[in-house]
Amino acid sequence: MKIISIFLIIATLLSTSNANSKQFNPIIHLLRPRSGSGGVRVDGVNCLSWRLAVEAYNLRDWRLVPASCEDYVGNYMLGAQYRDDCEVVADAAVEYANSLQLAGDGRDAWVFDIDETTLSNIPYYARSDVQFGAIPYNDTAFNEWVAEGAAPAIPAIRRLYKKLLSLGVKTIFLTGTAERFKDIRIANLNKAGYKDWDKLILRGEADRGLSAVEYKSKKRTELVNEGYRILGNVGDQWSDLIGANAGNRTFKVPDPMYYIG
Amino acid sequence: MKIISIFLIIATLLSTSNANSKQFNPIIHLLRPRSGSGGVRVDGVNCLSWRLAVEAYNLRDWRLVPASCEDYVGNYMLGAQYRDDCEVVADAAVEYANSLQLAGDGRDAWVFDIDETTLSNIPYYARSDVQFGAIPYNDTAFNEWVAEGAAPAIPAIRRLYKKLLSLGVKTIFLTGTAERFKDIRIANLNKAGYKDWDKLILRGEADRGLSAVEYKSKKRTELVNEGYRILGNVGDQWSDLIGANAGNRTFKVPDPMYYIG
Repeated sequence: MKIISIFLIIATLLSTSNANSKQFNPIIHLLRPRSGSGGVRVDGVNCLSWRLAVEAYNLRDWRLVPASCEDYVGNYMLGAQYRDDCEVVADAAVEYANSLQLAGDGRDAWVFDIDETTLSNIPYYARSDVQFGAIPYNDTAFNEWVAEGAAPAIPAIRRLYKKLLSLGVKTIFLTGTAERFKDIRIANLNKAGYKDWDKLILRGEADRGLSAVEYKSKKRTELVNEGYRILGNVGDQWSDLIGANAGNRTFKVPDPMYYIG
Repeated sequence: MKIISIFLIIATLLSTSNANSKQFNPIIHLLRPRSGSGGVRVDGVNCLSWRLAVEAYNLRDWRLVPASCEDYVGNYMLGAQYRDDCEVVADAAVEYANSLQLAGDGRDAWVFDIDETTLSNIPYYARSDVQFGAIPYNDTAFNEWVAEGAAPAIPAIRRLYKKLLSLGVKTIFLTGTAERFKDIRIANLNKAGYKDWDKLILRGEADRGLSAVEYKSKKRTELVNEGYRILGNVGDQWSDLIGANAGNRTFKVPDPMYYIG
């Protein structure tokens, strides 16, 4: 009888939530895969398949999150799955870092992208005028957010960063952010717990007109010409991880909110 | 009262399945992400994060599916999520193919891997002595399965294949399978609905000792030297999609069962 009572309560809760479903969007549902033996299928884009295709670099040059996946992406970014996904990326990178035979000559290096890798812009992307990338990118609004210098760390990647420092690997930040934000970015990185780096490379006037791949390849090539060995490279965009001198191993941090080519 | 009755039935079913959970593993649960607002967290490896890390090439040289993800991988491969994931890969590839300006000189080409790309070995991997990659690879047993020539098509990739043929793109199969299986593979491909190709390249004696990346790079370079333009390349392993002449676009078909370096 005890079990039955519990399920009566569940039944009441479920019937209540069903009754409210037209007022309150049952957004949690979209995070459930449409799959499994006996699984109930949901119509429309399979948002988990879409996200997988983004992460596996099957989808390129996409401009906006599919309309039917807006709620999914918001839930994903705010929920435990995104954090777990980041932790597994960091685990893989730490395992790799631990396996390395380091030269210890100050030229063992690791390249970090900043946005959605080192720092998170979730407080910005969660805004109603941004909607996790479902609304077209607004350069002015985003730059105003960057100028606040208030982006939090992505904890998993900060853990990787600290591990690399403890191993003696030199850390290099390489970002597409414009040079004029240098001071604010330094303050933001410090505030988020990143306080030690060999280089912080921002996009200068000379880099204008370069694609993200061209710009990052150029800067990494300069690093290699200076004698750095890029043992690892972590970023949320494939454009961080391909091109010249991409690094001995690359690590893709999930980002289903936007695409930079 | 009607709603309550339905939930009483559900309650009975749930309590029954709970009672049986020690005998019958509730394997469906592991497909659910451990995430979302109010989602119940499951202990252990986040199998969805692990699978994402495999597909995004963050995990390399892994030997076995993590023990705690065996049920997850089995459910995934047999369920709708895997099929949906394959369909989204094919959708992306078809969209790209439709966007191409083809020369139409018989040198527009697309490279297809075979196992877990063109043909599925699920009937083999689902066996109790294989367990979706949770048991170490057995060369003899796998080759016996290949010799049966009974692998079904992956429907999404067959759709892509047929689309490419209709556009006039030449199809080339490039597989790590040994040359001695050539006749049986041709019969298997035909049976699965693949009946037209420019080349079917298997691993010959001269290719022994090459890694998968080296072998596939070598063969693709030979294709380019023959004048083929590799417009696209589809495979389930990153070793199909990296190296020399990887193709103008690559498409990664999901495969959480095994890794080939």
